[in-house]
Amino acid sequence: MNIIQNISIIGSGNVATHLAKSFYNAGIKIDNIYSRNFENAKILAKIVDSIAVNKIELITPHSDLYIFSVTDGVIKLLSEKLNKSIGYNIKVVHTSGMVSSMIFKNLFKEYGVLYPLQTFTKEREVDMTKVPFCLTANSKQFEKELVNLARNISDNVKIIGDEERMKLHVAAVFVNNFTNFLYSIGKEITEQENIDFELLLPLIQETGAKILDG
Amino acid sequence: MNIIQNISIIGSGNVATHLAKSFYNAGIKIDNIYSRNFENAKILAKIVDSIAVNKIELITPHSDLYIFSVTDGVIKLLSEKLNKSIGYNIKVVHTSGMVSSMIFKNLFKEYGVLYPLQTFTKEREVDMTKVPFCLTANSKQFEKELVNLARNISDNVKIIGDEERMKLHVAAVFVNNFTNFLYSIGKEITEQENIDFELLLPLIQETGAKILDG
Repeated sequence: MNIIQNISIIGSGNVATHLAKSFYNAGIKIDNIYSRNFENAKILAKIVDSIAVNKIELITPHSDLYIFSVTDGVIKLLSEKLNKSIGYNIKVVHTSGMVSSMIFKNLFKEYGVLYPLQTFTKEREVDMTKVPFCLTANSKQFEKELVNLARNISDNVKIIGDEERMKLHVAAVFVNNFTNFLYSIGKEITEQENIDFELLLPLIQETGAKILDG
Repeated sequence: MNIIQNISIIGSGNVATHLAKSFYNAGIKIDNIYSRNFENAKILAKIVDSIAVNKIELITPHSDLYIFSVTDGVIKLLSEKLNKSIGYNIKVVHTSGMVSSMIFKNLFKEYGVLYPLQTFTKEREVDMTKVPFCLTANSKQFEKELVNLARNISDNVKIIGDEERMKLHVAAVFVNNFTNFLYSIGKEITEQENIDFELLLPLIQETGAKILDG
């Protein structure tokens, strides 16, 4: 079985940044960081000892895996460009909860999804070992390779189909994005009234702790 | 200044239970526990070395403070009964975020609110020292007495007016009740799909932690 040892990351946002750092710290070589914003690519590339590029055609054809960690809406376009530039015989994944792995069909030989079920912001450290990585792959062989890769950085790796992942992502949106929206409403109300938002923090903590304790 | 040393609690629900236990542990004497459900009153009274009653008229006239910790809708009715039974010259508070302290006006000489901003369930221990207690009182003297009483059990005691408290409570409903509702939707989605809800717990934890860290 092949072991994925060097990767390129298309994207330089929150997920791309956390993944790149985690893989780099786990000893995986990061060949290229692509971003259309060259400055962002260079900042991240410097941290993970990689080479920044701002054109898809400049990405090396020699990576064992290409990870698309970009806005859902541009995965298709960028993967078509990568196909034109490097060809069919490469391995690719994206990191989106909401996009089917089938978006890569006919463009690449081996493809899948590496979905880290967590909320990331650039400045905030996350214990990646606890983050569930939900994997989809179009072959058993590639699935094994992805599992091995993900296990370098997380203790919680699951094989999950496209449909299942999308439903899980919807559940994640409810417990994260909508919840954050409610917190922001709570904050607005207290700020409008000049009440200290801090008063709500023990309640927020307990509400979360109750869920975590079941 | 008078020190509140013995209290009676009208109610035996979640808030009443946590308050009664905390005050009892802090050395405050609990004269009576009232509940129309006599069994509930007896269970709680036994824990806090008190006397259970199931009629308002049986509540002792000698408590330093009477705490109404019942559903918002029955505070008025029960306080009218207490006024008839014991009279005007007593001190009372309720524990509701949404009810004005003015509900007690003309019924009692000294009245106010002792609102613990937290979510309580009977079975789950809460670190009461961290719970914000939001106090309202109709006199400076009574306010001081309530502050001293609350400081027996919490390190976080605030004076807050009726209107401010109600707005704070609305904010609390957003960050707690609505959030819980979102968690339950997330749980439903995963259960319907036979996906492990546990996968979402690191996300829930991180979402909460982000708020708490600011």
